[in-house]
Amino acid sequence: MTESTPGPVHPTADAVAALRPLPLSATTVADDSLWGTWLRRNAVRTLPHCVSQLHAAGAIDNLRRVTGEADGDFQNMWFADSDVHKTLEAAAWQLARTPDDAELRAFLDTTAALLAKAQGEDGYLNSYYTVVKPEQRWRELHKSHELYCAGHLIQAAVAASRAGVGAEIVTVARRFADLIVDRFAAANDVDGHPEIETALVELYRVTGHRPYLDLAARLVDLRGHGLLNPEHFGAAYLQDHVPIREADAVAGHAVRQLYLLAGVVDVAVETHDGELLAAAQRLWEDAFGSKTYLTGAHGSRHRDEAFGDPYELPADRAYAETCAAIASFQWNWRMLLATGDVRHADEMERVLHNAIAGSTALDGEHFFYSNPLHLRTGHDGSHEDAPSQRLSWYSCACCPPNLARLMASLPGYAITTDDTGLQIQLYTAGEIETTVDGSPVRIAVRTGYPWDGRVELTVTTAAPITLSLRIPGWCPTEDVRLDGNPVEPVDGYVRLRRDWTRDMTVTLDLPMHGRIVRPHPRIDAVRGCVALARGPLVYCVEQADLPDGVTLEDVRIDPSVPPVAGRATEDGPVTLTVAGGVRTADSALYGSAIEDHTDPITFSALPYFLWGNRKPGPMRVWIPVAATE
Amino acid sequence: MTESTPGPVHPTADAVAALRPLPLSATTVADDSLWGTWLRRNAVRTLPHCVSQLHAAGAIDNLRRVTGEADGDFQNMWFADSDVHKTLEAAAWQLARTPDDAELRAFLDTTAALLAKAQGEDGYLNSYYTVVKPEQRWRELHKSHELYCAGHLIQAAVAASRAGVGAEIVTVARRFADLIVDRFAAANDVDGHPEIETALVELYRVTGHRPYLDLAARLVDLRGHGLLNPEHFGAAYLQDHVPIREADAVAGHAVRQLYLLAGVVDVAVETHDGELLAAAQRLWEDAFGSKTYLTGAHGSRHRDEAFGDPYELPADRAYAETCAAIASFQWNWRMLLATGDVRHADEMERVLHNAIAGSTALDGEHFFYSNPLHLRTGHDGSHEDAPSQRLSWYSCACCPPNLARLMASLPGYAITTDDTGLQIQLYTAGEIETTVDGSPVRIAVRTGYPWDGRVELTVTTAAPITLSLRIPGWCPTEDVRLDGNPVEPVDGYVRLRRDWTRDMTVTLDLPMHGRIVRPHPRIDAVRGCVALARGPLVYCVEQADLPDGVTLEDVRIDPSVPPVAGRATEDGPVTLTVAGGVRTADSALYGSAIEDHTDPITFSALPYFLWGNRKPGPMRVWIPVAATE
Repeated sequence: MTESTPGPVHPTADAVAALRPLPLSATTVADDSLWGTWLRRNAVRTLPHCVSQLHAAGAIDNLRRVTGEADGDFQNMWFADSDVHKTLEAAAWQLARTPDDAELRAFLDTTAALLAKAQGEDGYLNSYYTVVKPEQRWRELHKSHELYCAGHLIQAAVAASRAGVGAEIVTVARRFADLIVDRFAAANDVDGHPEIETALVELYRVTGHRPYLDLAARLVDLRGHGLLNPEHFGAAYLQDHVPIREADAVAGHAVRQLYLLAGVVDVAVETHDGELLAAAQRLWEDAFGSKTYLTGAHGSRHRDEAFGDPYELPADRAYAETCAAIASFQWNWRMLLATGDVRHADEMERVLHNAIAGSTALDGEHFFYSNPLHLRTGHDGSHEDAPSQRLSWYSCACCPPNLARLMASLPGYAITTDDTGLQIQLYTAGEIETTVDGSPVRIAVRTGYPWDGRVELTVTTAAPITLSLRIPGWCPTEDVRLDGNPVEPVDGYVRLRRDWTRDMTVTLDLPMHGRIVRPHPRIDAVRGCVALARGPLVYCVEQADLPDGVTLEDVRIDPSVPPVAGRATEDGPVTLTVAGGVRTADSALYGSAIEDHTDPITFSALPYFLWGNRKPGPMRVWIPVAATE
Repeated sequence: MTESTPGPVHPTADAVAALRPLPLSATTVADDSLWGTWLRRNAVRTLPHCVSQLHAAGAIDNLRRVTGEADGDFQNMWFADSDVHKTLEAAAWQLARTPDDAELRAFLDTTAALLAKAQGEDGYLNSYYTVVKPEQRWRELHKSHELYCAGHLIQAAVAASRAGVGAEIVTVARRFADLIVDRFAAANDVDGHPEIETALVELYRVTGHRPYLDLAARLVDLRGHGLLNPEHFGAAYLQDHVPIREADAVAGHAVRQLYLLAGVVDVAVETHDGELLAAAQRLWEDAFGSKTYLTGAHGSRHRDEAFGDPYELPADRAYAETCAAIASFQWNWRMLLATGDVRHADEMERVLHNAIAGSTALDGEHFFYSNPLHLRTGHDGSHEDAPSQRLSWYSCACCPPNLARLMASLPGYAITTDDTGLQIQLYTAGEIETTVDGSPVRIAVRTGYPWDGRVELTVTTAAPITLSLRIPGWCPTEDVRLDGNPVEPVDGYVRLRRDWTRDMTVTLDLPMHGRIVRPHPRIDAVRGCVALARGPLVYCVEQADLPDGVTLEDVRIDPSVPPVAGRATEDGPVTLTVAGGVRTADSALYGSAIEDHTDPITFSALPYFLWGNRKPGPMRVWIPVAATE
C-alpha cells in the first residue's frame, strides 16, 4: 500500500464535504479485534471462495465464451459479469493491504487480461449481450443490467487505480466508460438497475474527466420520468415513478433505491447541487424513520425485493437483502462525508455489526442473501430467498462478492478528517497514521470493542488537533465517561481540543450493559415484543439455546429484569442471560379467551450476527413480553 | 329449473357420504335476505359484467383466433380460456334458477358454439396452445394450465348438464375429456395447476364413465413425485414435493393446494379410499389449525401466492386470494358431505361471509384479487396484487368469474340431507322443498340472519324427520335458545326428532352480541391486538369512520368495554361502536422507552365484507389493545 491509497469514495478537493475520508492506508486494524477477524476471514476464506465460485458457477467461462476460449451455454444470471467485477474490486482493495498475496494477484492479472480480450473493439464489454443477445444491446435497459455491470467494472478499476494494482482494468473500464458517454450523453435512456451513477463519479474523481460526472448527473435526473418499461413490478420498483428531486419516500427494489442514493450524493457533492443533497436527506429521513429494521437492514417484501409501506417491518418475512445492507452502509458513508451528521455513522455501525456481519457464516464461505429477524418453527427453508441456513453460493450471486469488496476496504470507513482534526467514527482496536493540516498524527487505539466499552486512545502529534470521539446513538449519554468524568457531547461527538504533543492517552468508557429495545407502536409486526441489545450489537434467541422441550414461539421475556452479560469462554462472544417464561397451554387459532399462562425460565441470547452457525433452527430477535408485565 | 337439478358436487349413490347435498332446485333464497341481495347482484351485475369483460379483455377473441374469426395477437394470460369456462359455468347455474334470461342464454349458446368450432378434430381445445404454441402442446405441463383450463370447461359442462341447458358444451367437454383420458391414462404426467381432478370426478358423476374417475385418481397419486419442472418457486409451490398420502402440511400456491384437496376428497369418496380421505383431514387440521386468516382466507405470501409457515398470518401482507377463499368453501363442502363434521360448515360460513363476500364491491362490478386484513396509512396501492380498492378486471382474471359461478350456485350449499332428515348448515331466509325418504318436506325459514340471530323454521311434512340445526362455532352455546329454552347441541347440531306433521314452527335464537376475538399467541403479526365480530361477520375499522385528525394506526381498543351493535338506517348494515383511545405522542422507530399514552375516543366498526366501498383509505381488522388493559 502506498503512503496515501485513497479508499472507496474519495471526493475531489472541490467537492462539498463537511468531512473527508482518510486514505485506506491510514488505518490499520488490530488482528485480534472483531474487525481483525472479519478482515482476515475475508482475505483467507471469502475472497478465495469467491474466486473459486466464479469459476464453478461459470461467470469466468461466460467471458471466455466471448473470447472463444470456452463453449457451451451462458451460465446463470445475465448480469453475472458483475460478480466478476465485484470480486476484482475486492481483490484490488485486498492487494492494497496485503500486496504479497500472489494467488490474488494472479487472479487479478488473469481476469484483467480476460476482460481486455473480451472487450469489443468499440469498448463494449458484457458477456451476455455479446454472446446471447447481441441484437438487444442497449435495447432493453429496464432489465439488461448493462450499465449496472459496467458500473461494477468501473468500481473495480477505481479500486485498482487507487490501490496501484492492475492498470489494465483501468484501461478497459475507461474504454467502456468512454463508449457509454458517447452512447448516453445525449440520449434519454437510463438503466433499470442503478450503480453506474456512483461509479462514473468515482471514475471522474480518479481521472478528472468531467464527462463522466456530467453523465452521472444526467442519469440521476433522467430517472423518474417513466423512461423505463415498468414490466412486472411497476415504475416504483425501478425508482422511475418520480424524479429524485421530488421524491419524498424510498420505494421499490431496495438495492436499486440505495445504490441510486449513493450516486445521488456523489453527484450532489461534486456538482454543488444543494437541492439534490436535500432530496437525499429527505429520503434518508423516510428510510430511517419508518422503513429500517433493528439490524439496519432494508427491504420488507420478498415479492419485489422492495421497501414496504411505512412501519411495515415484518421480522419473519424481512427480505433484508445483504446487498441492500451494504448499499445502506455505502450511502450513509457518503452522507456522513457530505453533512457531518453523526446519525449516518450510527447507521453505518448498526448495519455493519448486525445485518452485514450476520450475512457471512463463521467459516467465511457461506452467506445469507436474505437476513430475516425471525425464523419460525416449521419454516420451509427450501427456497433460495428464505433459506434456514447460509448457502455457499447463489444462482443470483450478487451478495458474496459484495461482502468481499466491502470487507476488503473496511478500514477506509472508520475515520474522517477535516481541517482541524480527526473524527473517530467507528471504534476498533488498531492504529491511525495520517497528517492533519500537514502535520503527522499517530493514534493507537486499544479496545475490546464491541465486546467491551472501554476505548483507550494514545495520540502522538507535533501540532494541536481536535480529536472528536463519536458517542454512539445507542448509548445512554449520561453513562458515558471520559477519563472517568461525565461528558457533554455536542452533535453526537465529544470534541477534544487538547495539546496532544505530549503523547497523551484518553480513555472513553461507553456503557456496555444489556439493553431492552422497544419498537415504535406503529410497527404491527413486533407489537408486544422487545429486543435485546448491547453496545452496537442486536441480540437474538435461537432454539439451540433453549431448554429441551421448550419451543421458541412459546418463549416470553420479562423486560423488568435487566439482561446479564457474560462470556462462556475468554475469547467467545458476550451473551446475555434473560429472565422470562414459557407458555404452557395450547389454544385455538382464534377465540374469545386465549390462555397465555407461562412458567418461569431463564434463557440465553447471542449476538444476531452469529446466528445460524450451529444446526439450522428457529431464531428470533423480537421476543414477546410476558403477559404479567 | 327441473324438479331435481343437482348442484355443484353431487356424489354418486355409491360414494362414501355422511351427508348428501340437496338438489340446487330444493332451496330458494328470500329476495330480501343478505344472500338474496348477493344472488340478485350476481345475476344482474356481476355475470353480465364478466361476459362483457371476456369480450373487452380478448378472451373470446382468443378462441375466435382459433376459428379464424379474429386476428391479432393472443390477449392476456395463456390460461384466459378458463375465464370463459368459469363464466359459462356461472351462466349454467344461473339459467337453472332464472331460465328466462335471454341474454345469458344467448351468451351460453353462442359461446358453446364457438367452443365447438374451436375444438380440434381430435378433441383438443385450448386457444393459447393452438394459436401461439402448437408445438408445445402437453409439453410444458408445469406451467401450461392446459388441464386446468380443461377442468373448468368440464365443470361448465357438468353445470350445463345438471341445469339442463347447453348440451353442446357437454359434447365438447366429453370429446376433450376423452382425448385427455387417451393421453394421460397411462402417462406419468400431471398438470402444474390442479383443477382437472375434481372436474373429472364430477364428469364421472354426470356420465357414469369410469375412466374419468380412474384418471382423476391417477393424477392425485402421481402428484408429489417430482414429475413437474419446479422452475421458479420450487416443487412445493406445485404440491409436487410430497405425495398427498404422506403430506402433513398444506404448502405452496394456495389455490393449487385447495383445488387439489377438493379433487382428493372427490376421488376418495367415489373410490372408497379411506387413506386418501384421512390425508385430506390431516391437511385440513394443518390449514385451519395454523394457516387460516380470521376472515377464512388463505395465503400469507405475495411472492408465490402461497401458504406461509405455521402462524405466519400477516394482516397487511395477507395475500388471501379470492380464488383461494372460493376453493376453501368448495373443499369444505366436500369434507362436510364426506364426514358430517360441523367444523366444515363453520368454515364455509366464515369464508363466505367475510373473505368471499368482501371481494366484490357493492356495485357487483369491482373485485379484489387479494383480500388483506389491513391497509396501512401510506400504502402504495399501485400494484394489481395489493390495490387499495377493487378493480373492475385483472390481467389475470381468475377471481371475478369464479365469484360468479359460486354465487350462481350458492343455494346448493346451504342444506344437507341423510336418510333420516335434513341439516340446516348455513342460515338464510328462504324455502326448502324436498323429499326425505320419499316423503315431501317443506320448510319455510324466516330470519334476518346474519344481522339478526332469530331463525324461525316452519316445517311441513307428512312423515317424521329429524331436523338438525347447526349451532355455529362462533356461538357461545350457553346463550343459544330454542323456543326460549337452553339447548345442548351434540357434535355442533341441535337435532330435533319431532312429529312435524302438524306444520310446526321452531324458533332458534343465536346470540348476536358484538364479540372480542383474540388471536393464538403464536400469531406474531397481530400480537397485542383483538378483532371484532358479531355472528359470522368479522368487523373492521376504516379511516373513513374515524374523527378528523385521527390516524388509524394510532387507534387503540379497550376490550373490557363490550361493543355496542346498532344500525344507522333500518336496512343498513349493523355496525359496532367501540371504546378505545388514540395515541398522542410520536416516538423514535426504536428506543429504550416508547411513549404510548392515549386519549379516549369512541369509534365505529363495520362488517369486513363491506370495506372499501367508500373512498380508498386505511383499514384494519386487528386493533391494538390500549396499553392500559
